[in-house]
Amino acid sequence: MAPQYAPSLRSCLGPMLLVLQLGFILIYAFYIEIESNVKVYGITFSNLYPEFQDVNVMVILGFGYMCTFLVRYGFSGSGFNLLVAVIATQWAIILNGIENWYYRGKIRIDLKSLVVAEMCAVSALISIGVVLGKTNPVHLILIALLEVSGFVLNEWLLQTLLKVPPLNSIMLLHIFAAFFGLMLTRILYRKGSEQPFEKEKVDRKTGLFSILGTLFLCVFWPSFNSVLVDNRTPGRRLGAVLSTYLALAVSAVTAAAVSSLSSPKGKLNPIHLQSCMLAGGVSIGVSMPAVHQPWEAMAIGFTAAVVSTIGFRYLKSHMLLAFKCHDTCAVLSTHGLPGLLGWLAHLLLQIKDCDDHTTAIRFAVFHICSLLITISLSLCMGIITGLLLKWNFWRPPQDKKCFDDQAFWEFPHLAVQK
Amino acid sequence: MAPQYAPSLRSCLGPMLLVLQLGFILIYAFYIEIESNVKVYGITFSNLYPEFQDVNVMVILGFGYMCTFLVRYGFSGSGFNLLVAVIATQWAIILNGIENWYYRGKIRIDLKSLVVAEMCAVSALISIGVVLGKTNPVHLILIALLEVSGFVLNEWLLQTLLKVPPLNSIMLLHIFAAFFGLMLTRILYRKGSEQPFEKEKVDRKTGLFSILGTLFLCVFWPSFNSVLVDNRTPGRRLGAVLSTYLALAVSAVTAAAVSSLSSPKGKLNPIHLQSCMLAGGVSIGVSMPAVHQPWEAMAIGFTAAVVSTIGFRYLKSHMLLAFKCHDTCAVLSTHGLPGLLGWLAHLLLQIKDCDDHTTAIRFAVFHICSLLITISLSLCMGIITGLLLKWNFWRPPQDKKCFDDQAFWEFPHLAVQK
Amino acid sequence: MAPQYAPSLRSCLGPMLLVLQLGFILIYAFYIEIESNVKVYGITFSNLYPEFQDVNVMVILGFGYMCTFLVRYGFSGSGFNLLVAVIATQWAIILNGIENWYYRGKIRIDLKSLVVAEMCAVSALISIGVVLGKTNPVHLILIALLEVSGFVLNEWLLQTLLKVPPLNSIMLLHIFAAFFGLMLTRILYRKGSEQPFEKEKVDRKTGLFSILGTLFLCVFWPSFNSVLVDNRTPGRRLGAVLSTYLALAVSAVTAAAVSSLSSPKGKLNPIHLQSCMLAGGVSIGVSMPAVHQPWEAMAIGFTAAVVSTIGFRYLKSHMLLAFKCHDTCAVLSTHGLPGLLGWLAHLLLQIKDCDDHTTAIRFAVFHICSLLITISLSLCMGIITGLLLKWNFWRPPQDKKCFDDQAFWEFPHLAVQK
Repeated sequence: MAPQYAPSLRSCLGPMLLVLQLGFILIYAFYIEIESNVKVYGITFSNLYPEFQDVNVMVILGFGYMCTFLVRYGFSGSGFNLLVAVIATQWAIILNGIENWYYRGKIRIDLKSLVVAEMCAVSALISIGVVLGKTNPVHLILIALLEVSGFVLNEWLLQTLLKVPPLNSIMLLHIFAAFFGLMLTRILYRKGSEQPFEKEKVDRKTGLFSILGTLFLCVFWPSFNSVLVDNRTPGRRLGAVLSTYLALAVSAVTAAAVSSLSSPKGKLNPIHLQSCMLAGGVSIGVSMPAVHQPWEAMAIGFTAAVVSTIGFRYLKSHMLLAFKCHDTCAVLSTHGLPGLLGWLAHLLLQIKDCDDHTTAIRFAVFHICSLLITISLSLCMGIITGLLLKWNFWRPPQDKKCFDDQAFWEFPHLAVQK
Repeated sequence: MAPQYAPSLRSCLGPMLLVLQLGFILIYAFYIEIESNVKVYGITFSNLYPEFQDVNVMVILGFGYMCTFLVRYGFSGSGFNLLVAVIATQWAIILNGIENWYYRGKIRIDLKSLVVAEMCAVSALISIGVVLGKTNPVHLILIALLEVSGFVLNEWLLQTLLKVPPLNSIMLLHIFAAFFGLMLTRILYRKGSEQPFEKEKVDRKTGLFSILGTLFLCVFWPSFNSVLVDNRTPGRRLGAVLSTYLALAVSAVTAAAVSSLSSPKGKLNPIHLQSCMLAGGVSIGVSMPAVHQPWEAMAIGFTAAVVSTIGFRYLKSHMLLAFKCHDTCAVLSTHGLPGLLGWLAHLLLQIKDCDDHTTAIRFAVFHICSLLITISLSLCMGIITGLLLKWNFWRPPQDKKCFDDQAFWEFPHLAVQK
Repeated sequence: MAPQYAPSLRSCLGPMLLVLQLGFILIYAFYIEIESNVKVYGITFSNLYPEFQDVNVMVILGFGYMCTFLVRYGFSGSGFNLLVAVIATQWAIILNGIENWYYRGKIRIDLKSLVVAEMCAVSALISIGVVLGKTNPVHLILIALLEVSGFVLNEWLLQTLLKVPPLNSIMLLHIFAAFFGLMLTRILYRKGSEQPFEKEKVDRKTGLFSILGTLFLCVFWPSFNSVLVDNRTPGRRLGAVLSTYLALAVSAVTAAAVSSLSSPKGKLNPIHLQSCMLAGGVSIGVSMPAVHQPWEAMAIGFTAAVVSTIGFRYLKSHMLLAFKCHDTCAVLSTHGLPGLLGWLAHLLLQIKDCDDHTTAIRFAVFHICSLLITISLSLCMGIITGLLLKWNFWRPPQDKKCFDDQAFWEFPHLAVQK
């Protein structure tokens, strides 16, 4: 069946994972301890735990199963997602605590640190969606480490230079991850991949698994957007939950409408529906701090779904042919464009709310700077990561072995080699 | 493969969804605002949020995946369920708020309004279970809008005329939805469908997806029954959770027993087990206000599973042949009969608890009236909806295209047309 | 297709389930009532409910779907798991309440009793993992009843004789269940099963279902380990959640590393990854009371994954050939060895923390005794159960019908007998 074997990762993957994991354990042993102060900023454990679990479900089950749509790449989709998520989370806990370590010598972690670290892991998971299937797990782990480092650096820059509130800077993860991933896939472009890869296909059953993952993301997205919202202003958290729910609802309906209208036979495309309903969640997440009315959330969800569905139908192949960016999970239309749209909505709504011109202009300048910093840093990190990964030492799979579980997984008891 | 194409929905589905969604956004822009009072009736956001999420999981994942059992109808089952759920929820928020709007000019929404709206959406989802596979998405959306309107009207009638408490009137959703759906399918009856449809089949893998959906419903049913229970009487909510859990447990065991006993070879039927264990949750939900002891809940669960399993085995084909009601998801035995049983149990338990005859008779009269109003209104709405849907303008799929995803979904990258 | 039919269970399964269920209802009617005191030990309903739901998801969805990996045994894996879970939970509620009944005449149940009962059900679910596919549902129910009885007896012995705290004694469930199951499968050994069974195979899609179940277990394992932790010492619960999360993360990475290193071509084995990442959760659960630092949890997770992966690769076939133990779900390496490792870690950490020698020795003696009691009781119960099940009255399936849904399930509408 396989004319040529994919290069063995034995000398590469195992030792790398072991060294990384033992290194993490050492760092944790010397510098990390559990927060003993039970009530930080009025948030108790019981307040936060259900939302933490929702985010956890999104990271492990949602993203993992969303990536199972490829017919021969289901184990890799869910398995590598898990590996990347847990490595990125451990790494993000360390990076996020560096400032604390600098001042106090120790990093104290609580449930909130874990949630923030999981959000940094989400940015890595979005990035690997772009290159999924064309890379091996060693690549993915390197991408995760570098992407998370870049993202935490970006957050720190925004918070230090521009005094952007933590919640706003974290929510830029969609924009950072999308541009990082696109630059990466541009550099890793394989000649001849204008034609679709031999095994880049979907199947009814894997489609259902993928829908399952997407629905997990949808259902728990309100928690993702509200978990870090400040509890002290009463009603802000309720607002975040309701806005996210409405934006997702509207974007699901709109994506179906646009998908049907843009198809010659008026049929729906299941992948449009999946990607584009998430677009509503992305753009409302980025614009959350300025959204105060339900209809604003709904209008943002509507626009995001229109932009995203049209982007999906026409932009994906254009990106491949014109810019040589092969984007497996259509991250540009699912996270990139809706993220930019959310950023724009935030700008417009905030300016509308400002009383005088000076504040408005000041806000606009800061807001535009924060976008520019984010995009430039993400492109730079994408270039660095891409150049590092081009090195043949990491043994990339051949074109014929792309999108194929058999390159990385053994199936001793497999019934049918279907 | 397809001798004849299903009629294109391009001129119908897309514009309808767009108009509907833009209309909702306009209504929300003018009349809906977020409740700023954080603590309503002593229930804070943190108290309600985990249960809201459970209900949300049931609506999106539970009902969606329960409907994937048809071998070629998985995308439609889960996708249309999602569309109907989000449209019905947005519509129900508006309808439930009309009274508020009348008195205050504005509708204020909080987490509880969203939960109530999702329950109204559940009643629409149950109804579309009856006609699933024989309709197109345009039909389903019309059904959802009319069913939810009827259900909210019914609730308002019961609460205004008979002073039925809100929780009790909402729980009648199972009865309302089942009779609405049955009347609808009677009117939409297609000649020749005494024989099973060509593509109305189950498969091992789709069966597992469907079991997944059912288990989601089972696991979170205690939240569904307890989320609206008044928190002020201490222990009522705990009672609701424990009763629902026990009723579901008993009905699972009983459904397996009856399924095995009624099969010639003593085998279990996976679909019996699925539908009939939900029966316990349905009947305990309807009778909840009068259940005070664990054994009462268990006895109700036991009876519900017996009635439902026997109904499933003998009644489904009888309904088709004698009454020309083709009931895709067996809603009559899953929601209709157990709902009636729960209503009866409520009556008997409440009468048993009454001290004097006058109160008992008074309660019985009111209770019987509320059932009669619910059933007559649901049948009327079913007739109206059915007559509207018979209109050929909505382009129903041909018999050969029933239960087939290909009529509505495009699969550009599909690997095998399996 | 089937040269010989599996023996019919009609005269056996149905009546047994009915009698059992009616018996439970009677016992509940006379002796069980709902706790009316809302706040027990400072834990309110709202504090516990989200964690109860997480455990519930693990029991019904997690264990159920983890057992769907066998290609022709998916309905049985998830369906029998559900039956066993609800029967074992009802039975455990009764057994756990016997002491209360003895002193007060009534058993009062609240959410905590239900959580404890579900944990006892987990021990039964782990045991049936060993014999899955080689038994019929009647066997499984008998196993569940006897295993839960033995486990509750063991808990009572440990708490009465050795004053072991309840949480510690419950967490020994992994060790108890694994040894019970192994002894059982040794006694039920079928001649000729050194060769793999004809239908003991995995398939891509069932593999994905099984990964889904495993991920449910992983995601909610922090709740499983923390739900019974005492809320009164501030921070203990947070510590339990963070430790479990970190241990699971480390064990996932380590399992991938060891799996790749121990494979000739450096490939990963999806089943290793699944089983061995759970190993981290098991061992941290058993050693929880003595773990105070994140790195301790990580080191335990690391060791557990190494032991478990190596055990999986080399021990499973050895157990079959040398000890005639056919272990379907590899419970020895997933629960048995990591449980013992957790027990050892608890011993070492506690001794390290002791100030003087006397306390340390005293603790060590008690700790070793509790392990010896647990193992001997589990082996004894395993022997008793095994001898009872060898009786042909229970109609075991023939070798050819092992691992086959067709022996127990009817599929009237099945599309393809694939």
